[in-house]
This record gives sequence, structure tokens and C-alpha cells, in this order.
Amino acid sequence: MIIEPVGAGALLAILRDGRARTRTELVQLTGLARSTVSQRLDALLDQQWIVPAGDAISSGGRPAVAFTFNAGARIVLAADLGATHARIAVTDLDTRILAERGQDMPITKGPEHVLGWLVEEVTDLLAETGRSLADVCGAGIGLPGPVEHSTGRPVNPPIMPGWNGFDVPGWLEPRLGAPVLVDNDVNIMALGEHWAASPEVEHLLFVKVGTGIGSGVITEHRLHRGAQGAAGDIGHIRVASATGQACRCGNTGCLEAVAGGAALAAELTARGTEAADGRDVVKLVHAGNRAAVQLIRQAGRDIGDVLAALVNFFNPGVIIIGGDLADAGEHLLAGVREVIYSRSLPLATQHLTIRERELGDHAGVIGASVMIIEHVLSPTAVDRSVAPTDAER
Amino acid sequence: MIIEPVGAGALLAILRDGRARTRTELVQLTGLARSTVSQRLDALLDQQWIVPAGDAISSGGRPAVAFTFNAGARIVLAADLGATHARIAVTDLDTRILAERGQDMPITKGPEHVLGWLVEEVTDLLAETGRSLADVCGAGIGLPGPVEHSTGRPVNPPIMPGWNGFDVPGWLEPRLGAPVLVDNDVNIMALGEHWAASPEVEHLLFVKVGTGIGSGVITEHRLHRGAQGAAGDIGHIRVASATGQACRCGNTGCLEAVAGGAALAAELTARGTEAADGRDVVKLVHAGNRAAVQLIRQAGRDIGDVLAALVNFFNPGVIIIGGDLADAGEHLLAGVREVIYSRSLPLATQHLTIRERELGDHAGVIGASVMIIEHVLSPTAVDRSVAPTDAER
Repeated sequence: MIIEPVGAGALLAILRDGRARTRTELVQLTGLARSTVSQRLDALLDQQWIVPAGDAISSGGRPAVAFTFNAGARIVLAADLGATHARIAVTDLDTRILAERGQDMPITKGPEHVLGWLVEEVTDLLAETGRSLADVCGAGIGLPGPVEHSTGRPVNPPIMPGWNGFDVPGWLEPRLGAPVLVDNDVNIMALGEHWAASPEVEHLLFVKVGTGIGSGVITEHRLHRGAQGAAGDIGHIRVASATGQACRCGNTGCLEAVAGGAALAAELTARGTEAADGRDVVKLVHAGNRAAVQLIRQAGRDIGDVLAALVNFFNPGVIIIGGDLADAGEHLLAGVREVIYSRSLPLATQHLTIRERELGDHAGVIGASVMIIEHVLSPTAVDRSVAPTDAER
Repeated sequence: MIIEPVGAGALLAILRDGRARTRTELVQLTGLARSTVSQRLDALLDQQWIVPAGDAISSGGRPAVAFTFNAGARIVLAADLGATHARIAVTDLDTRILAERGQDMPITKGPEHVLGWLVEEVTDLLAETGRSLADVCGAGIGLPGPVEHSTGRPVNPPIMPGWNGFDVPGWLEPRLGAPVLVDNDVNIMALGEHWAASPEVEHLLFVKVGTGIGSGVITEHRLHRGAQGAAGDIGHIRVASATGQACRCGNTGCLEAVAGGAALAAELTARGTEAADGRDVVKLVHAGNRAAVQLIRQAGRDIGDVLAALVNFFNPGVIIIGGDLADAGEHLLAGVREVIYSRSLPLATQHLTIRERELGDHAGVIGASVMIIEHVLSPTAVDRSVAPTDAER
């Protein structure tokens, strides 16, 4: 066990709940000497991580000043770079979106093209918010493939030609002047949905059903990345009902090859109704096309077949279904629920909630922002940011 | 985020690595005032949690006393109560076994009979070690069924008549005079194997293949219990190759109904070779019985089929195969490996280790001991244990 000294960052961690606290309250909460608390508060004030709260609190004598977290102290760049579409945003330290835009941007254009576009857009976005690059404390990037989170490099991403091993932070950091963190797009969506919609849930599973199928795993409120950062890749689990469908991974009967948006569109086209992708399938579902409705319902059952096993194994409190196909709503969810409730153990399903995403297309940028905020506001990082002041004493 | 004050427990957490440290080193490590460190060390010495290290450390002037963790300060009772066999042990605070015994004890005899036997045996075991009940800091109990860890009560355990909802801590604590923690037997085995054989591994999966099949999930070095404490129950996941085998859970094709020890024994008997349980099957494997070897190999593949999905989802660094059937060794493991390496994603398997258990029959009692030690030596618990001394100041 490693004990962190109670530094300025630990004080800020206490204040991040948004409640204003006086010097005396902080002395009581931390057990630190009053002089130490004062010195650390000065360092935090100096860096604008905190501000004096509006109302001073009186306990009879001289009114005591209270301090509160300053969510506007820095800004965050957040980007959700999908297979065909990109979205970028500027947020404050409470994930509030200050400016945002999205546009078609095929990831296949390669890293320098896509990231170059991102850098250009950032200038415009910052102008909108009236802030400058100097205020940016970090940039969080989501990519549609496996990423080694510790280095920010994609690892053999199947749909991202030119990106394998590309040093995304090494390319972006000198251009943005801020630290860059990169993760899989489904992981950042899971972070976003958890932060915004289910922050109280300890164990959560976010499933993205789009062209491919993937999941983000939250345990004890944090992302579970696994030993190689590969956790959550459920698209290549074999489905019981599979009839030998070939998957791009080289195996057959994978969930993605059976129930992914591309597979459904191909199947629907083969049955005589033209559909280019999962979005088309969903449109047909909403238009009442019977074949599309049947396919979506069976896709839900196939996804449910895989999730039923994961519910027994992982016992999540909430499963959130996202991705383009989630727009089919109950047509998809009914199949998912049907199989989970018939195949999973009663103890694991009795309090399980299975629901649609809440953030829609914003989950990615909000999750990318959360990833940066948790990094920048970690006690160790804050301690480092105020170190020059600490050294002056 | 909750910040714990740096109390006596936090000092002990630092010293638990076994290295002796002086007062000055502890002041530097914690940032606490020297007087505070001295006061907390006195409290820890008073409770014998620490002892002065043999050699005083000189830095020129008066030699400074160093302090070190005292693993003999308390003793732990550990019990692994299986379906038919029970094992109990007394350990020190470093899981070293001081006395131990095992005997046949059907869990079906009910809680008062089994736990009453345990209480009687404890007296004998303590006598062997020369310690008394007053030295016992806690008792850890493993049971062969689902347990609500927070209350220590079994939850609808399928093979434990009379145990459902039984208040195990409420019955044992007054008789032992120490806190009692209860968990599923597979969870405590996972804790034991992780602690003893793979403490450096962050994400570990322990699979028990016995009469039934279950798993214990370690993530970030801690047990993952899930939202209802049901995590790891992989015995009722459907196997792809299943041909409709009826399971005691009411479903068909469950892993346990296909590859568990009872299922294999029944299948072997049906094929003309008498086998009462999984142990008999393993004996036949070692005797070179061809049907038994084929069955075990196929059981390995079926277990591998389920684990292949979990490897994609959870991305563990190590999978440990335990339980009676693990004694079949490579006959079982070859099938497991065959399917995992052919069905899981390369990124998730490239550094994956799949191996047999190392602790054998001791994993349960060692894990039960770990469960108590982590509880009793948590900083908050230690702070409470020294509170009377703290209050004297």
C-alpha cells in the first residue's frame, strides 16, 4: 500500500464535490496543521484551482472565508474520432460543453490528415469560447480501434490504415501545448455515460452496437482496461445461434458478424431491401419494414446471448446499450432483455437495469473530457502543478 | 474522493512491506509532524502491531530506532468449508500456517452442526500453537455457494440445505469473540492463489473445476464481487457444443452440466466405466483409461469455449485452473488452451498465462486468512484498534 502525503491535490480532491469549506473545516478533515492547510490553499488559489466562495461563514467572531473548486480554472479539449464521423468539443472541468462541432471525417484518411484537421478546428473552437491554448489542461482523444492507453498508440486497428503504432500524443502535444490521452472510442463513451447518467453505479457495462460491436467496462467507478488494454472487445465472442458467418477477424460466428450494423445491412440487402449500413436498417425499422424489425429483434437476442454470459461473470448493476443501432429502441432492447433474463442467474439479474444510452452522440466527447479531468485533477498531478509555489516556502 | 487522515493505520500500511523504518523516515514519507509520528508509533507499539527492529540505524549521532511490522501480533482463524470436506487453519498476519487440519464434513449437515464442529476444533488448534482466543483478530470462512459478503449470509445456495440466509457471523462471533467474514469458497481460493503465487498480477481469473464450476475474479489486485456479489459464477454459461444437457439450475447446456466433475462421472458411468465423482475420473485418467482421457480433454475444450469469451471481455493477465479436476493436469489444460488460443483475440492472448493452481488444497484457507488480514490491517480498522491510546492525549 502506498500512502500519498496529504498535499494540495488531496485538498482539491475534497473540494471537488462543489461544497465550499473553510480553513478550519479542512484542518479537521485532513488532520493537517493549520499552517500547512493555509500554505496549500495559497498554492491552489495562486493556480486558480479554487476561488473564495461568495459568502463568508461566520461562527460568532470574524467571518471565515470558505473556498470552492473553480471548474473554469482550465479548459479541456475532447475529440471522438469515429470510423466516418468526428466530433470535437471544448469543456470546463465539470464536463460542461463550451463549444462543439462535428463533421464527416473518415478515419481512413490517416493520422496526419485527421489530427491536422483537429488542430485547425481547435483554433476556431477556442475563439468561440474566448479562451486560449494556454488555458487548455489536456486533450482527450477517442479512436475506433484498440489503443495502448499508456502510450496513446493504436495497436493493429482493423479499420484504421496508417494508424498502427502512430504516436498520437507525440504528434499532437507539441501542436497543442498540452498533455494528450488516447483511448478506444467505446471506453470513452462508457466513461461519459457513467459520469453523466450513472455516477452512483459501481459496476457498469456500456455496449456500442454500430458497424462493429464493442463494450466499455466500468468497475468500482473506473474503466477496466485489462492486462493489455483489450478488455471489452466482445464483438468477436462466438454466438450460440451462429451459422458460420465469416468475420473480418478470420474466425466465424462472431457477434459482430452476426448482429453488427454492417452484417444486418448486408442480410437485409440479400433479402431484397437495400440498406448501406446500420443507420439504414434503423430507418427501415422506424418505417415499419417487417424484415428489418425481425433482423433487429434477432440481433438483440444474439447480443443478449453474449451478454447473458457476461452478466453471470461480471454481475454489473447497469447495462447501457448505445451505438447507431440503439436508435432502434425497444425493438433491439426487447431481444437483449429476453435472452439475459432467461439465461442469466436470478441473483445477477434481480436488480439489473438494461437501458438505452442517455447522452446519444455526446457520450464520446464527454467521456474524453472525463478522462482528462480525472488525470489533471488527480492529487499527484495537482501537487506537481503547484510545486513551484511549494518550493518557495 | 475521500481522503483518509494519515493515522496510525496508514503508518502501519507503510511498514507492512516488512522493511524497518526510523521515525525520521516515516516523517519524510508522510509529511506528518514528528510529534504526531511519535504518538502514532507509540499507539502501534502499545498494541504490538509493530516492534523495534533488531538493529538500530546510526547516522553519525545517537543510533535511531527502526520499527517493523509484527506478523505475530495477532492470529487468524481460516476455514474452507467445501461440499463434503472441511479444512481449518490458524495463521499469522503474513498467512503463515501455524496449525491446520482437514476432515470429511458434509456441508449438508447444516450450519449449527458444521460451525459447531469448527468451534470445537479451534480450541484444539489454538492449543497446538500456544496462543489463545484473545489473540484471534478474526475468522475468515469460505462456503460452497453464493454468499452476501456484507452480511455473511448464504443466498439460496443450491447444495447447502438449511444454510439459506443463516447469519454465520451472528452465530460464530459470540463463540469466537472475534469478527467473522464469509465469502464464496471460489472467491477465497482466488484470493489465496493471487496472494501466494501471483501477487504482482493485476487482473487474474481463478477457475475451480470440481463437482460444479465457478470462478473468482481479481481486478486491480482486489476481488471483484459485482453488484450483487454474484460475479464469477461461470458454471451456468451456455456452452456452444452443448447438446441439451439438463442442469440443476433449470436451464440446459450450462458449462457445469457439460464439463463439471459430476457430469463427467455420470457420462463415464453411462459409457460403462464406473465413476462416482470428478476425483474418480481423474484417477482413471492417471490410470490411462481412454474414455476418461477423452472426456477430460473435451471438458477442457468446453471450459475453454467459455473462457475464450471471458478473455476477450476481461483481458486477464493470468488464468489459474484449480479444483479436483485440475489434478488431471495437461489432459485438462491442453483443451482449455486449444480453444482460448483459437477463439480469443491475439491482443488479449499474446501475454496470457494459463496454468494449474499452485497452492492445491491450501488455497481456500490461505485466501480466507488474506480476507481477514486485509480487513484487520486496513488503515481505518487499525486506527480504531489504537483509538483508546489516541484518546489519552
